Amino acid sequence: MLDKILQHIDATRQQSLEGLKAFLRIPSVSTKPEHVSDMKRCAQFVADQLAACGFAPQILPTKGHPVVLAKTSHDPNRPTVLFYGHYDVQPEEPLEQWTTPPFEPTVRKDDTGHDAVFARGAVDDKGQVWCHLQALLAHKQQGGGPPVNVIALIEGEEEIGSVNLYDFVKQHAADLRADIALVSDTNQFARNVPAITYGLRGLVYTEVTLTGPSHDLHSGLYGGTLQNPANALCELLATLHTPDGKVNIPGFYDDVRKLTDQERKIWASLPFNDESHRKEMGVPALFGEAGFTTLERKWARPTLDINGLTSGYQGPGAKTIIPAKASAKVSMRLVPDQDPKKIEAAFRAALESRLPKTVTLDIHVHSGASPTLLPIDNPATQLAAKAVKTGFGLDPVFMREGGTVPVGTLFKAALGIDTLFIGFGLSDDRVHSPNEKFDLDALHKGTRTAAALYAELADLKA
Amino acid sequence: MLDKILQHIDATRQQSLEGLKAFLRIPSVSTKPEHVSDMKRCAQFVADQLAACGFAPQILPTKGHPVVLAKTSHDPNRPTVLFYGHYDVQPEEPLEQWTTPPFEPTVRKDDTGHDAVFARGAVDDKGQVWCHLQALLAHKQQGGGPPVNVIALIEGEEEIGSVNLYDFVKQHAADLRADIALVSDTNQFARNVPAITYGLRGLVYTEVTLTGPSHDLHSGLYGGTLQNPANALCELLATLHTPDGKVNIPGFYDDVRKLTDQERKIWASLPFNDESHRKEMGVPALFGEAGFTTLERKWARPTLDINGLTSGYQGPGAKTIIPAKASAKVSMRLVPDQDPKKIEAAFRAALESRLPKTVTLDIHVHSGASPTLLPIDNPATQLAAKAVKTGFGLDPVFMREGGTVPVGTLFKAALGIDTLFIGFGLSDDRVHSPNEKFDLDALHKGTRTAAALYAELADLKA
Repeated sequence: MLDKILQHIDATRQQSLEGLKAFLRIPSVSTKPEHVSDMKRCAQFVADQLAACGFAPQILPTKGHPVVLAKTSHDPNRPTVLFYGHYDVQPEEPLEQWTTPPFEPTVRKDDTGHDAVFARGAVDDKGQVWCHLQALLAHKQQGGGPPVNVIALIEGEEEIGSVNLYDFVKQHAADLRADIALVSDTNQFARNVPAITYGLRGLVYTEVTLTGPSHDLHSGLYGGTLQNPANALCELLATLHTPDGKVNIPGFYDDVRKLTDQERKIWASLPFNDESHRKEMGVPALFGEAGFTTLERKWARPTLDINGLTSGYQGPGAKTIIPAKASAKVSMRLVPDQDPKKIEAAFRAALESRLPKTVTLDIHVHSGASPTLLPIDNPATQLAAKAVKTGFGLDPVFMREGGTVPVGTLFKAALGIDTLFIGFGLSDDRVHSPNEKFDLDALHKGTRTAAALYAELADLKA
Repeated sequence: MLDKILQHIDATRQQSLEGLKAFLRIPSVSTKPEHVSDMKRCAQFVADQLAACGFAPQILPTKGHPVVLAKTSHDPNRPTVLFYGHYDVQPEEPLEQWTTPPFEPTVRKDDTGHDAVFARGAVDDKGQVWCHLQALLAHKQQGGGPPVNVIALIEGEEEIGSVNLYDFVKQHAADLRADIALVSDTNQFARNVPAITYGLRGLVYTEVTLTGPSHDLHSGLYGGTLQNPANALCELLATLHTPDGKVNIPGFYDDVRKLTDQERKIWASLPFNDESHRKEMGVPALFGEAGFTTLERKWARPTLDINGLTSGYQGPGAKTIIPAKASAKVSMRLVPDQDPKKIEAAFRAALESRLPKTVTLDIHVHSGASPTLLPIDNPATQLAAKAVKTGFGLDPVFMREGGTVPVGTLFKAALGIDTLFIGFGLSDDRVHSPNEKFDLDALHKGTRTAAALYAELADLKA
């Protein structure tokens, strides 16, 4: 039966790609108010696909963008899989850096000569959601449906911190009862090195604003007699790191789980090259916390980064003002077992204790998410490894990732279930950046893996 | 004769105000390319006014915005006064903070209950140029013209550093030969405390850009493995001050002229109150270089200020990126006898020596201007004091100012003449800020003073 399904997937690659392009054409940017109607259109698109897979889809409202919830008919003797994905995407700016427009998906060769589809959301997360939708469609068309109960939960607020998903999952907990959750929003380790991601970083995302004078002031007529909030912001943010790359906030590292010798050994054996990584990013030199390898820094060590700076005059030429305000978007990536609330409090306390009396401080927290870790020896993980072998023809490696998929924490806390992270992205897919892409080979093998996964998971204890 | 002229000025206040409003309606923002035609329109407006005063105006092109040059007929037995002003204005942003639109001049009471005209450029410098144009018109209408030769030089690039004026003055040096230059682009010390400004600060205005990765990167997938250029920019700029408010650049203070005991004594006796100054700016507390009073800090001590910060995502909500670039507009106010070229080199050297190898640095210098100082006992200064007494009915105080009027340096270097700075602005006029205004009483007494000045300066040795 699975062979027949996989053959069907192999035979319908072009149709699958055309369907994904239609999905990518919808500019579902969740953070921008002007895209509210595109968000609704995109939710409907997902619901229509799930209906074709034999699910009974519902588009359910939240305080923000709607959630698409859909189920197969329930057989109590079968295990239940909760598939989660998101249909929203990051903003497309800076627009001028896109080779082809972000919402006109285009197939061409990438820098390494492999065919890919280029568009905002190509890999994060529409392309990966599409793998599952196509796998479920093949199960429906070739076998009447998968041998497990499937609940699909596709939200529209992942890129803005899933602000309404927590309440939604708590409200619909009975409807979401499952044995395992399944998420494809991560990467392969590399091309031809498929991976199961057993750990992810968490996130605290803040906006820090310093206010000085009540209005912008002439820097000649006033300069020297007051603290400039832009000067003060730079000085304050500069205190947040030590010269060796550590985050300089009291208590920040207290709950960080140490790497095991085994983990360090496995990761050291992975095909990773610092110089290739440097070239991929396009930086003059790598930089990070002293005492750790590059993979350790991105998978198992917390960070603090400024994601945006805004103050004063930003136009062409010169304007001689002392700005009234200066602000920064500042986020921290957390690792097991750091707690977002505790880190937020430590961040706040550090800034407040270092604040000069000459300016005022406001800290707004946009979102928070705990880090997650799923043991390698979990039965679901082992079945997933078999599915990857079927889909790719290769054994997966066990890795962690530096990104954040906060639903893992949410499903554990609200539903009591673990989450399996199997992603099909590549590290050069330019997630969140101009010229985001999804590899066509990954699209195909990801669809095959998803199909195998829904078959293999039938062996889970229901 | 002067009495008749002053009576005429007293009788035509309303006409003068209407004329100024027409001047203010032209959005002559020199830094923005979209205002090129408004700049031409504004130059023509000034030329028309000078023609009405009996001058022969010319609108002369530069590589940027045109200069208006106009002369009275030349009498070799009379002294010659070079009147300088500018018709360009600062950008109007942030627009939402204006009570009435910046280019729709509106008369209303200011915060202290005094009538003023509110508009971008009201005091800097259109309103003050208007005092001279109205004074010269009164001289023409009541006495056939002033008893001195007058050359009017009104440029359109003061707010962008007078980038083409240096070449212009050198090219037209023969046409600009004069005994003294005259500029009204400064303030009274306070309401009812008219002033002659004998010293001004200079300026070096730069744009500092750090580049890290070749494109914005996902802060989860890459964070921890590279230097974030926004983090690095804050750390770099934070090195530029010591905690006690000094500029931390080697050699920065080497050429700073010490304040004399006499200056410190005069300034300490001026009606200045720190708490009023704090309230006017709307800051929680004053701040500045240790060891100096507020007036000393703004008139006689150099500063370094960030005028703008730009990096990464600046829209609503969250975007989890490590930005490719981070930049800051950074300017320094200089005092006698600092040299802009030397300070620029010291600034550059400091940043380069502190730059981490993980990012690249670009420094662009937008403009530079030397500080100026004119002795109190200069004959022109003494005649000007008499004119102020006539115009305001009060003796002027002798002060310096923190702003920059670089033509002073230019006229000294290119024409060998000193410049008299007599300004009519008030310190709460919100120069360069939203709700810029010019006091109607200052407009009137400034016009009277200008009329008296062109009469008094006839006693200068030609």
